[in-house]
Amino acid sequence: MSNNVKQFFGLIGLLLVCLLCPLNDLKGQDQVLHWTKQTSGVWVAQAGKPEAVNFTTVSEVEPKLEALNRMENIEFPIPESEIKSVVFDGKTYLQFPLEVGEQIFGLGLNFKTVEQRGRILRLHMDHYGGQDNGRSHAPVPFYVSSKGYGVFINSARYLDVWVGTAVLKDSKVPMDSKDRNSDKTWTSQPYSDNVSILVPAEGVEVMVFGGPTMLDAVSRFNLYNGGGCLPPKWGLGFWHRTPTLYSDSMVINEVSEFKRHQFPLSVIGLEPGWQSKSYPCTYTWDKHRFPDPAKFVSQLKEAGVQTNLWMNPYISPESELIGKLKPYTATHTVWSGYIPDYGLPEVHKIVGDHLKKYQLGIGVSGFKMDENDGFDNWLWPDVTRFPSGIPAEKMRQLYGLMMQKMTTQLYRDQNRRTFGLVRASNAGGVSFPYVIYNDYYSHRDFITALINSSFIGVLWTPEVRSSSSAEEWLRRMQTVCFSPLAMLNAWSDGTKPWSFPEVEKQVADVARLRMQLIPYLYTCFAEYSFYGRPPIRAMNLLDGFAAPVDKVEGKLSSTANPCGEATRKEMKDQFMVGDNLLVAPVFTGESERKVVLPKGKWYDFYTGRLAGEAEVITVAPGLDQIPVFVKDGGIIPMFESGLVSLKNGTKNNLIIRVYGKKEATFQLYDDDGESFEYENGAFSWREIRVVFGKNGRLVGSVSQAEKSKPDNFGSIKFDFRSE
Amino acid sequence: MSNNVKQFFGLIGLLLVCLLCPLNDLKGQDQVLHWTKQTSGVWVAQAGKPEAVNFTTVSEVEPKLEALNRMENIEFPIPESEIKSVVFDGKTYLQFPLEVGEQIFGLGLNFKTVEQRGRILRLHMDHYGGQDNGRSHAPVPFYVSSKGYGVFINSARYLDVWVGTAVLKDSKVPMDSKDRNSDKTWTSQPYSDNVSILVPAEGVEVMVFGGPTMLDAVSRFNLYNGGGCLPPKWGLGFWHRTPTLYSDSMVINEVSEFKRHQFPLSVIGLEPGWQSKSYPCTYTWDKHRFPDPAKFVSQLKEAGVQTNLWMNPYISPESELIGKLKPYTATHTVWSGYIPDYGLPEVHKIVGDHLKKYQLGIGVSGFKMDENDGFDNWLWPDVTRFPSGIPAEKMRQLYGLMMQKMTTQLYRDQNRRTFGLVRASNAGGVSFPYVIYNDYYSHRDFITALINSSFIGVLWTPEVRSSSSAEEWLRRMQTVCFSPLAMLNAWSDGTKPWSFPEVEKQVADVARLRMQLIPYLYTCFAEYSFYGRPPIRAMNLLDGFAAPVDKVEGKLSSTANPCGEATRKEMKDQFMVGDNLLVAPVFTGESERKVVLPKGKWYDFYTGRLAGEAEVITVAPGLDQIPVFVKDGGIIPMFESGLVSLKNGTKNNLIIRVYGKKEATFQLYDDDGESFEYENGAFSWREIRVVFGKNGRLVGSVSQAEKSKPDNFGSIKFDFRSE
Repeated sequence: MSNNVKQFFGLIGLLLVCLLCPLNDLKGQDQVLHWTKQTSGVWVAQAGKPEAVNFTTVSEVEPKLEALNRMENIEFPIPESEIKSVVFDGKTYLQFPLEVGEQIFGLGLNFKTVEQRGRILRLHMDHYGGQDNGRSHAPVPFYVSSKGYGVFINSARYLDVWVGTAVLKDSKVPMDSKDRNSDKTWTSQPYSDNVSILVPAEGVEVMVFGGPTMLDAVSRFNLYNGGGCLPPKWGLGFWHRTPTLYSDSMVINEVSEFKRHQFPLSVIGLEPGWQSKSYPCTYTWDKHRFPDPAKFVSQLKEAGVQTNLWMNPYISPESELIGKLKPYTATHTVWSGYIPDYGLPEVHKIVGDHLKKYQLGIGVSGFKMDENDGFDNWLWPDVTRFPSGIPAEKMRQLYGLMMQKMTTQLYRDQNRRTFGLVRASNAGGVSFPYVIYNDYYSHRDFITALINSSFIGVLWTPEVRSSSSAEEWLRRMQTVCFSPLAMLNAWSDGTKPWSFPEVEKQVADVARLRMQLIPYLYTCFAEYSFYGRPPIRAMNLLDGFAAPVDKVEGKLSSTANPCGEATRKEMKDQFMVGDNLLVAPVFTGESERKVVLPKGKWYDFYTGRLAGEAEVITVAPGLDQIPVFVKDGGIIPMFESGLVSLKNGTKNNLIIRVYGKKEATFQLYDDDGESFEYENGAFSWREIRVVFGKNGRLVGSVSQAEKSKPDNFGSIKFDFRSE
Repeated sequence: MSNNVKQFFGLIGLLLVCLLCPLNDLKGQDQVLHWTKQTSGVWVAQAGKPEAVNFTTVSEVEPKLEALNRMENIEFPIPESEIKSVVFDGKTYLQFPLEVGEQIFGLGLNFKTVEQRGRILRLHMDHYGGQDNGRSHAPVPFYVSSKGYGVFINSARYLDVWVGTAVLKDSKVPMDSKDRNSDKTWTSQPYSDNVSILVPAEGVEVMVFGGPTMLDAVSRFNLYNGGGCLPPKWGLGFWHRTPTLYSDSMVINEVSEFKRHQFPLSVIGLEPGWQSKSYPCTYTWDKHRFPDPAKFVSQLKEAGVQTNLWMNPYISPESELIGKLKPYTATHTVWSGYIPDYGLPEVHKIVGDHLKKYQLGIGVSGFKMDENDGFDNWLWPDVTRFPSGIPAEKMRQLYGLMMQKMTTQLYRDQNRRTFGLVRASNAGGVSFPYVIYNDYYSHRDFITALINSSFIGVLWTPEVRSSSSAEEWLRRMQTVCFSPLAMLNAWSDGTKPWSFPEVEKQVADVARLRMQLIPYLYTCFAEYSFYGRPPIRAMNLLDGFAAPVDKVEGKLSSTANPCGEATRKEMKDQFMVGDNLLVAPVFTGESERKVVLPKGKWYDFYTGRLAGEAEVITVAPGLDQIPVFVKDGGIIPMFESGLVSLKNGTKNNLIIRVYGKKEATFQLYDDDGESFEYENGAFSWREIRVVFGKNGRLVGSVSQAEKSKPDNFGSIKFDFRSE
């Protein structure tokens, strides 16, 4: 059947539908959605006629159904009659109910706010422009409610979301009109009972993920998107990026300096100067700075260091790729480079083959994929057309995801795990082994982003680049060492970890502590991969945790605040690493800070002393330490040394720290740390068990690794810190 | 024919069109637009199938064809083959060419920038949020080029505009790929040869307005939209708004205080407290504060003072209007008030009848229509549905325009002119007698808005509200007196003009100067109405004027400026009032400033002394004066006194100031200043002529007013300032 004939029959169908529709539908009558259960706690509904290109069809990741089926089987968590939709004016309008007091989290990688109720967002891929308005490096259309469920809008369009601001005339909560002239309780923000979403397409797939807890809902979302990534072990070590014009010998020399300073180093990242030309890119090694790249990468590997390469998507007319690639590029250019259409398999093949030959083939361990996010002045306009026919708007939402998919697959084909950096991610990317970074540089806001990353299935690094003081340098280093990717990115400034001699020891200490924590962190990532639980987590994902939110009344002013708007102060500067560690960074200029300790007892990570229980404490840790607390019964398996080889087969000694005075268990994960054999069962979960012995003191034991499975631990000792 | 049958035939048509279209159109092949000449220098083209609801169909204003036809007949000003469009993905893509060095102005009421080339805007109705990103009180989709033509996109959708940032692969200016690694001339902003516009609808009407000058193009745009408004004379006097809870006697007392201080006063504005309830509004007088509103309004009128009333669109459930109005309101509420659908004639009738009876009927002279702009948190969401079927997006772009249209018509029906304030305007509103104001309060940015208002057919007032110092108070008063609407808006603070005693005299001086300037200003507005020339004007609208633009190279920084972006410093702090006055406000904390004098001689307004010629001068005017310059041969007709009655029939004496030493003419406009009789010919343009007399000195004369036409001038004297 020719395309024209197909079109004809399609239109006849459309014609019949239109004739049968009551005309007042054109004015937008709401319809109730019909939900189909997909697996335990996961439901899907279709509004209108969903588009073919969306997050799940592009990422092509299989849901982890087995893990999902093992989760609690629960009822649909929202009153079905209160979820409504209508297709009107070429768009899909969605409406979900909100209860009084219900809080909403997620909806992109926000940098200044955690709770989103009361906000209006346009989910739009972009760099971070200083405002939480929906433009972000990961504008993921997923939110999770304090009532313990999640909602996912599977559309790669720019979505407008009104999170509890749209006020309906026929709301169940009656309209409360007040006289501003005389009533001091008048507010410019009347109560709203819903989340409203505008999808600029004539249909969309919508999903609901059940709880009962928020962490369950997030875990189900993550598992449905393939589970979290499991990085190679070296990915969790210390990363360093050298200045952009460094040559091979300068890099090798820098690596020696790390050794000389007894500073851990797992990965060296090369910036644009590794390429013969960049911005636009050739993807070809520069012959002068890197005359023998294969030898260079081997040298690094021998020193126990992986190589990561910067790239951005835009291809130079002088690249050897361009001959084959040009027909598959867009109508516009970026930075005078061609834009490959990753919506086409041809592009994955052409670029993939090149990377396989010249980069993966000589041992490069991964990529830093820059500038696939925005901002508008550095990207293609939305009037760009791509040969695949995918509209530019969707390409923008999906491009980072598509590049992640391509490179993930290249490494998977070689049965090697990679871990890299990306500027843009989105729903569907949970399982891709990439960490988001950016150009913004507020230490405080970087922590808020770390918190928010845990709601939306992405990873974020608060990378360190430079600092105006030794204090800031140390404070930033302390934070990044408790993040998914501990990196100094000195591409422009050339700062070294020891550039501030007055804090060199403390910086080295926290970097070595990071290395020591790898057994614990690797287990956290395994939980991300196997069970969907994010390794770094918002406090709000702790069951029953309610952050104190202060509302500060606004003062009326005709020039500054004409509606007397109140402002909200929320807790956004402490987070969890796995189940057991609570991290509360200190910022430059501060000598003390408040820490909110959730219910149960919490112990100081360094001293093991009781810090408090369900209370707000004030700590003054001095410059040397970042405040870290461990929950009662918290078990933290650590390497004995902070300078270890992470190569499979190297036996590193383990110190298992135990905090508090109660019996506890911990499932310690291990595998070869490098390949995908764990997907075929080559892994072990070893139970660490702490019980009261006959003398009334705690005693620890560790179950054996299963036979024929990787075992990378040497001697194992217990350290009961709170005794 | 029933609607269903109409739909059927419509679809059959669509079907045939689709079968005839080549399929590769679906991927977006550009088409050249076909232009039809409308009148002298005005062309129209249709891309795709334009929507029925747009700016011109909503404002329903007739083009001033006669005035247009009198303008120079010119050729189509843009290479036709370089204007392209395509309908793709449900949207219309438009592309207009740019030449090297071409500058673009307009595209909304921007507050920080004048030239728009290099910017990316989303034209979206909103309050001003501190960034020139397209969200503004007047997101007018019209731009004017330094090449002397204008482009208007007649779509009330949110439009995305890339003003010289989209770089095409097949540009005539070849791609210039540079190696950022080694080439210091690398830029993050490669050259773009076009303006690209994304219209989210399957078609749009586009218009081109010819020059040859920029001012001609703007004038044609204004005339096509009905010509500028001609305010009543009292509208150009001094306005004052009293605090929101003032009662009738408090207002009357305030008016006496103006008299006592010898301070001019033409209009008193009442804020929300005139209503029985507000936010949401009843539109009904408060019985306690205003027990006899008719008497109150008459008392003011007797004192020579007009009454202006605040309102916003949202109707209280307790308003007497709501019984009839409710069926014609939207699905959502704003500030717990119903949203009338001004897309329906029923609403114009119901609200109009009420206003006619209770407000116009007792002599109220006009309205201040608040909060019809945004911001998002104070407005209906885009998922709102209106009974007229007009989508919420379009309602947002059009709402302020619709309210202007309704109230303009109410006054026209009574043959009385009105002049008022509005928070939202757009294309199509040129002839509506409203001035935009807002909540923002940067004195400097207010001037930039004044400049930008002249490109897009709107008026803007840099209203004074409060100040933190006597100096700021005076500096702001000086500016507002050289703007379309000279107002102190003391709704919240209750500040009086004399609240800063140390500058009371200077404030009174400049307010009286404002009153004296009314003959000149009224003529400027007549030129706006008759010839489309804006009364307050950007320097760039002077033929041949090229503002110096400094580019400041950016310093590369990994934390603050990772692409080493340059910043642009442009001249945006001086403007023209009519053809003859150049105003250069001084800001708080400054004792001197630079002024760019265009070609020709310029004279100091106060002293008449030569200030300079085609040069940048530095002036240090002291606190008493705002720097004002008059062009060579500039004639400024002024009232002798700053305390005059503007009532028709009152003869006010005229002083005609003449600057420079050359022969010159000026067309002085006059009419009754109150009614629409000028549309029936009841006006006069009197020629003021200055020639060298026999003694070699300049001599002035004024032609007689035509018989039976209004003549409101008493004695006429000449004041040759530069002799």
